[in-house]
Amino acid sequence: MANCLVAQSGGPTAVINATIAGIIKGNQLNNYYEKVYGGLHGIEGILQEKFVDLTHMSEEENRILRQTPASALGSCRYKLKRDNVEDFEKLFEIMEKYDIETLFYTGGNDSMDTVAALSEYAQKNGITNRRFVGCPKTVDNDLMHIDHCPGFGSAVKFIAETALQTWLDYNVYTREEVFILETMGRDAGWLAAGACLSNIVDLLVLPEVAFDEESFVKAVKDCVAKKNKCYIVISEGCKYADGSYLAAKNAKNDGFGHAILGGAGQTLKELLLEKGACQRAKVQDLSTAQRAFAVCQSLTDVNESFNLGLSAHLQSCNPEFSGKMVALRRAEGEEYDVEYFSIDASEVANFVKAFPGEWILPNYQGITAEAINYLQPLIVSSPVILYKDGLPAYVKPYYMR
Amino acid sequence: MANCLVAQSGGPTAVINATIAGIIKGNQLNNYYEKVYGGLHGIEGILQEKFVDLTHMSEEENRILRQTPASALGSCRYKLKRDNVEDFEKLFEIMEKYDIETLFYTGGNDSMDTVAALSEYAQKNGITNRRFVGCPKTVDNDLMHIDHCPGFGSAVKFIAETALQTWLDYNVYTREEVFILETMGRDAGWLAAGACLSNIVDLLVLPEVAFDEESFVKAVKDCVAKKNKCYIVISEGCKYADGSYLAAKNAKNDGFGHAILGGAGQTLKELLLEKGACQRAKVQDLSTAQRAFAVCQSLTDVNESFNLGLSAHLQSCNPEFSGKMVALRRAEGEEYDVEYFSIDASEVANFVKAFPGEWILPNYQGITAEAINYLQPLIVSSPVILYKDGLPAYVKPYYMR
Repeated sequence: MANCLVAQSGGPTAVINATIAGIIKGNQLNNYYEKVYGGLHGIEGILQEKFVDLTHMSEEENRILRQTPASALGSCRYKLKRDNVEDFEKLFEIMEKYDIETLFYTGGNDSMDTVAALSEYAQKNGITNRRFVGCPKTVDNDLMHIDHCPGFGSAVKFIAETALQTWLDYNVYTREEVFILETMGRDAGWLAAGACLSNIVDLLVLPEVAFDEESFVKAVKDCVAKKNKCYIVISEGCKYADGSYLAAKNAKNDGFGHAILGGAGQTLKELLLEKGACQRAKVQDLSTAQRAFAVCQSLTDVNESFNLGLSAHLQSCNPEFSGKMVALRRAEGEEYDVEYFSIDASEVANFVKAFPGEWILPNYQGITAEAINYLQPLIVSSPVILYKDGLPAYVKPYYMR
Repeated sequence: MANCLVAQSGGPTAVINATIAGIIKGNQLNNYYEKVYGGLHGIEGILQEKFVDLTHMSEEENRILRQTPASALGSCRYKLKRDNVEDFEKLFEIMEKYDIETLFYTGGNDSMDTVAALSEYAQKNGITNRRFVGCPKTVDNDLMHIDHCPGFGSAVKFIAETALQTWLDYNVYTREEVFILETMGRDAGWLAAGACLSNIVDLLVLPEVAFDEESFVKAVKDCVAKKNKCYIVISEGCKYADGSYLAAKNAKNDGFGHAILGGAGQTLKELLLEKGACQRAKVQDLSTAQRAFAVCQSLTDVNESFNLGLSAHLQSCNPEFSGKMVALRRAEGEEYDVEYFSIDASEVANFVKAFPGEWILPNYQGITAEAINYLQPLIVSSPVILYKDGLPAYVKPYYMR
């Protein structure tokens, strides 16, 4: 019996560990691999043979791992370049040394490129006993060929909850108030759009629509004139028509000549004050919390993330399964459900799925009912979170042990 | 049978409505008052006779009210000035018109001053059938003569959870990382100190200690040298030795000559980059979310807030009870518990309780074990939150109906 190796890459999410938990649990259910190794800090640590043995993880640890945010195995931004033969050779040597048949790699489109590259390399060199399987994750929800990405639903749930609750707060005074909520989303507006599930967003600014100062300021003025309030959600990646980021406008020099990007929300606030659209405005930038706040996991999201891990394990029991990403699509029918399948990782690599233009209402007025119908099932239900001394229980990261 | 009136003032919290829920439920249990009116937007709305009838609130609405953040009755910053005889006379006229025997007023030290002033006015003018009862609330935890304030525990729970979860996120890469978490607390460091419950804070910057650039930069350099990471928590109200706010240093002009305060965390980030203490730093400013995030209520906090409402109602059944604030103190014994009592509102008005100097470790190293022992019980246990379509159920604010 050969072994397998699981590793994580890219920016983490609130449910990324659930996929690892699924891979481990899958093997405990059918013992296809003798050992399940965890590679620390993605490809970077694998090339240094930094492994832990996860084969016999207890059910309790598996349970807590699913509610532990961020990559418990550590992450990396290291990208295997196709012309870096040395790295490829070293990786295959290590796989041979540890008798690793399958490498499961969790990540976004960069990681799917790694999976595709390694699989191609094996094929070209006639290596049939080393296989590579991609598992999707990204809060950004911008991967192609998958209905939605694990991590996205939980981030949207946290964002919509924050929108709803800060909206209740900003309404309490009779005075004029403008609130600006900034979400992640450098290239795609999925997360910002998700805030609209709260049903309280007045104006939505997405990267998919070139930002026009004049019409936006007018929209704010109209809203404030009508109800003395305006709740705005903006994606960090919003751009002017010339392609420059709003966040860059507010950049400062750090003293070494490097620009420090200000937030898009802060730029918006200053614009609104300058143009007299309002007398005061408050910015809340959700920053890291929106992808790390596992206390607000969507149960749908955790379960799908776990199931993608299980599915990856089970599909990998076919000795010809390589260079694939496991994925999910929406099942037909009235009730929300998903079906699991797989796709060539190369078809996912290096593409970005933007928020659909036909789902965006004109003049910053939010998103269509169809978009709401797409998003709504993804945040439904909450897992029972286990606590210890008033704080969520978590698995100590394996790279810290 | 006379009536009573409840109203809310000042900045809201995640559990402020639980006190109102307690006052209403108390009256449903003994029918001391014929009607329980809700006054909208505090004294401001009461002077305009903006009332709703809350007497027969259903158990279901009462239950959901307890998990609804922010002031469901609306709030105000309007302060009754002792020399404004017109306002006083008008208020007593309105109380007579609606036969209001008792006004329950929820708020911080400004609101307790209002309670004291109204009670004194009644006494001076020989008015014996109008009474005033204060109910404490503030996330800042800076009221005197009460062990801790309702709203504080839930805010600390959210802050400590965010600290823990963003810390797990910032650790995933092997590269150097500095993370700065900014909390509320203009005059007192209670909220920032609460982050230390997460047990991951490297450096803590409180308003109670004059900020010294040189020693702080050295502390960061030492921490980064040791572990390549540094997790910093800073209170928005941190000041230099000359009394100026760190946040003011980063102020910009809004185009009309008004200063826009930058955050203390942003100032800290720029300082650290300028001084070469680190190569990159990320700021998360918790802003409004930390006082509004009722999904992360502490059950201890909600229950105490509800019980203070019940206690206020029950103590008010004594016809001589006026000019008082209901309060709680820690019961003696090993197990955490509280006892309810009351104190003259004038003793609470206009004072601020700072975070104790003897609980602060030198050199930004956090807080003592005694401080942790004080804070820890306040975040324990989580209520079962009721959801609707994936988002927390809430009571529509009464001022919007």
